[in-house]
Amino acid sequence: MAEPQRITPREQDASRWYHDVIRQAGLAEAAEVVRGCMVIKPHGFAIWEKIQAAMDARFKATGHQNFYLPLLIPQSFMAREAEHVEGFAPELAVVTHAGGKLLEEPYVIRPTSETLVGHFFSRWIESHRDLPLLLNQWANVMRWELRTRLFLRTSEFLWQEGHTAHATHAEAQEEVRRMLEVYAEICEEHLALPVVRGTKSATEKFAGAVQSLCIEALLPDGKALQVGTSHDLGQNFGKAFDVTFQNAKGEQEVVWQTSWGTSTRLIGGMIMAHSDDSGLVLPPRLAPVQVVIVPIFGRGDGADAVREAGSALQKELQAAGIATTFDVRDYKPGYKFFEWEQKGVPLRIELGPRDLQAQQLMVKGRLASAKQTWPRTEAVAQVQAFLTQMQADLLAAAHARQAAMTVEVDDFEAFKAIFAGEGSRFVMAHWDGTAQSEAAIKETTRATLRCIPFARDETPGRCIVSGRPSAGRVLFAKAY
Amino acid sequence: MAEPQRITPREQDASRWYHDVIRQAGLAEAAEVVRGCMVIKPHGFAIWEKIQAAMDARFKATGHQNFYLPLLIPQSFMAREAEHVEGFAPELAVVTHAGGKLLEEPYVIRPTSETLVGHFFSRWIESHRDLPLLLNQWANVMRWELRTRLFLRTSEFLWQEGHTAHATHAEAQEEVRRMLEVYAEICEEHLALPVVRGTKSATEKFAGAVQSLCIEALLPDGKALQVGTSHDLGQNFGKAFDVTFQNAKGEQEVVWQTSWGTSTRLIGGMIMAHSDDSGLVLPPRLAPVQVVIVPIFGRGDGADAVREAGSALQKELQAAGIATTFDVRDYKPGYKFFEWEQKGVPLRIELGPRDLQAQQLMVKGRLASAKQTWPRTEAVAQVQAFLTQMQADLLAAAHARQAAMTVEVDDFEAFKAIFAGEGSRFVMAHWDGTAQSEAAIKETTRATLRCIPFARDETPGRCIVSGRPSAGRVLFAKAY
Repeated sequence: MAEPQRITPREQDASRWYHDVIRQAGLAEAAEVVRGCMVIKPHGFAIWEKIQAAMDARFKATGHQNFYLPLLIPQSFMAREAEHVEGFAPELAVVTHAGGKLLEEPYVIRPTSETLVGHFFSRWIESHRDLPLLLNQWANVMRWELRTRLFLRTSEFLWQEGHTAHATHAEAQEEVRRMLEVYAEICEEHLALPVVRGTKSATEKFAGAVQSLCIEALLPDGKALQVGTSHDLGQNFGKAFDVTFQNAKGEQEVVWQTSWGTSTRLIGGMIMAHSDDSGLVLPPRLAPVQVVIVPIFGRGDGADAVREAGSALQKELQAAGIATTFDVRDYKPGYKFFEWEQKGVPLRIELGPRDLQAQQLMVKGRLASAKQTWPRTEAVAQVQAFLTQMQADLLAAAHARQAAMTVEVDDFEAFKAIFAGEGSRFVMAHWDGTAQSEAAIKETTRATLRCIPFARDETPGRCIVSGRPSAGRVLFAKAY
Repeated sequence: MAEPQRITPREQDASRWYHDVIRQAGLAEAAEVVRGCMVIKPHGFAIWEKIQAAMDARFKATGHQNFYLPLLIPQSFMAREAEHVEGFAPELAVVTHAGGKLLEEPYVIRPTSETLVGHFFSRWIESHRDLPLLLNQWANVMRWELRTRLFLRTSEFLWQEGHTAHATHAEAQEEVRRMLEVYAEICEEHLALPVVRGTKSATEKFAGAVQSLCIEALLPDGKALQVGTSHDLGQNFGKAFDVTFQNAKGEQEVVWQTSWGTSTRLIGGMIMAHSDDSGLVLPPRLAPVQVVIVPIFGRGDGADAVREAGSALQKELQAAGIATTFDVRDYKPGYKFFEWEQKGVPLRIELGPRDLQAQQLMVKGRLASAKQTWPRTEAVAQVQAFLTQMQADLLAAAHARQAAMTVEVDDFEAFKAIFAGEGSRFVMAHWDGTAQSEAAIKETTRATLRCIPFARDETPGRCIVSGRPSAGRVLFAKAY
């Protein structure tokens, strides 16, 4: 284990700060020998397991079942849906040899599984009675990225991809919206990350979809992070893979499909949203260790009593469902404080002979500026209240930041000024609905049209770049 | 949804029986378009989730943490450990192109991750304080197999691979044995699959290990299925990847490593062990649906009452932690009975107006020859007792079968007779410890040395093929 190192202040170098936080918290590291890929280390993976558990429970509660598709996809499958292959071809990793032989047809490593889903749905769906078919898979996927950044964009990443088939377009659209809402709730209730729900423009939608919905989070630097997408695939893949069903009248129809996904990128967003120059800050609901008890043995012979009291306190908190570590390692308390702070543990409890004497706990919240004391008898109630409050505080702070950094702009010069250099905000501006104006804005400012928010002011106006009529404001930002 | 189909009797064609059981239970199907791979369908994946949950809890209880390594391994890494590359080279799938370009160095899709583990352990381990390092990963792996069979042997499969590093060989050996015992307990307590614990011969050990331990299950046809392995890697990968640590005296030493794995193959073993000509039979602890309630609406107007009573019963059982489905689909009861039987649901409850009247439940266990009735008031207690009993019965039956099909043989002619044609048993026979005799036995009979059981009669004898001295009997069988 390396000695704890300082974290580069965010003000000084935001990119180094981000990587320092990840390194010092033991979340992940670049694989280096595998281009653009990362190793997710135990502390990082434990956070992913918590996100998975929360999400999987909601998927099941909304009637979905998990399944598992092959990693490899015949290369020709990708080409069956024209937009799909165009969107993904540049990012594919290709298996050309296996078992010591050149393959007759190469396989690609899945960048997403709509094509295989199309193939199997066509085998599994026969009648309207088989619909809706509501499936999800937890898997690794690969998209060969040129510029990578831990968690936010890596060539391989872990994700879930939901795939559903429905008898009508209306039902499919309802599903697309339902799953976006599941994502938004997980972000807000678990990651303490408020999001803007909206529709992608035609330029930004998923390759092969009729329409893509998304949730966009504002990060402290004013940039946007797309943390989840939910796609109305219409009948595009159904037609490409001949996925038909017999309706109640005995006629053959093509199914209506959806797909939706979130990934380990969520962890990147969470790190950026809450962490500080002392390291990781974790929303309590996602913290693998919620409380750490650090024994202060002092110089006298009260060590046994401290050890016993610490162990009893750990058991008491664990019994109440609080993930608690009692850190009895042979390091100095200061070293431990520093390490657990960097790892983002929400609450630290110090326990020494004097605390035992006074029947109190000396505690420090991860974001608190000072320690405080709690009566020992109130341990469970105080810890629970603290964790609930911290979860709420993180969300409130993120909400406040989002409100403060969201601006309405009607003047293109002012718009450009906001996005000058590394600048970014959530800018609500009028747009005429054309890909042309969207491209012009992107070219001039590097800001992209993040989404057409569901909840937007629909007062008509004039497009910020073309001056043509606009039906309402849309969200622009630079994006990760 | 296809109409339920009959299952080919096992006696008639064991291989077709196996595939019919899997198809009719909706567990998996061959991908076909992806050579040697399969799709794990929702019912099959739900069983895997139950196995995962049981295993993961034990891994964590024994101090292990999950992590995630890249899918791809630089091809040159495989060659760093000489035996390892020899063992795995013929089965590798190779990525030669990515992002539209030919790669400078190809990657292989992981067949197992010891090489990457070696690389990262060398970065993570510095001091004896970093040891033991106890990690596990749940992942997909790929081994290009020529002959595949659903769950038992597929080119891609899901598994877990444990990887640990220790300061001493003794500690590593203890870990290897501990994790084998975890596997054995999961097999016996959850899968109702008794196993023989033992050591692999040098010929059969993992490519790169000093020694491999394994658990072998006897299937009803007398063949063996290796369902878990645990390897003492000694310092082989430590030396190949320079994984050293500073010991307490300040000296550099090479770590001692272990690795251990189980896979979706466990599901194949479980299917073979318990199922019958009516379809899948599931040990209750692994059944995604433990109880199905089938309403019998009859001709009168008691339908609403039945619906209400079924729903109430479902809630009551679910509240007691029993996975219960109330099947209100628009099919005839007989169709539903047939389908749930094929899916291996342990207990069926029929509920009609007459049962409501009599305040009773008409029930049928998956393996019972006749229905019986229980007082409605005893529902939870009766169901719990039934599930516990069925779990125990399946294990007892498998134990009895193993005892009946395990024989001691001292005569090579008798040995050959047992393995003639498709024949197989668990044969305990003397062996002189040489690879030569082991090969001679395999060549003549197709039986392989499954393991040197920990619990074996150590009365010396004479090798069944060479006549040379043997220190005790070892286990031979044909293997899947």
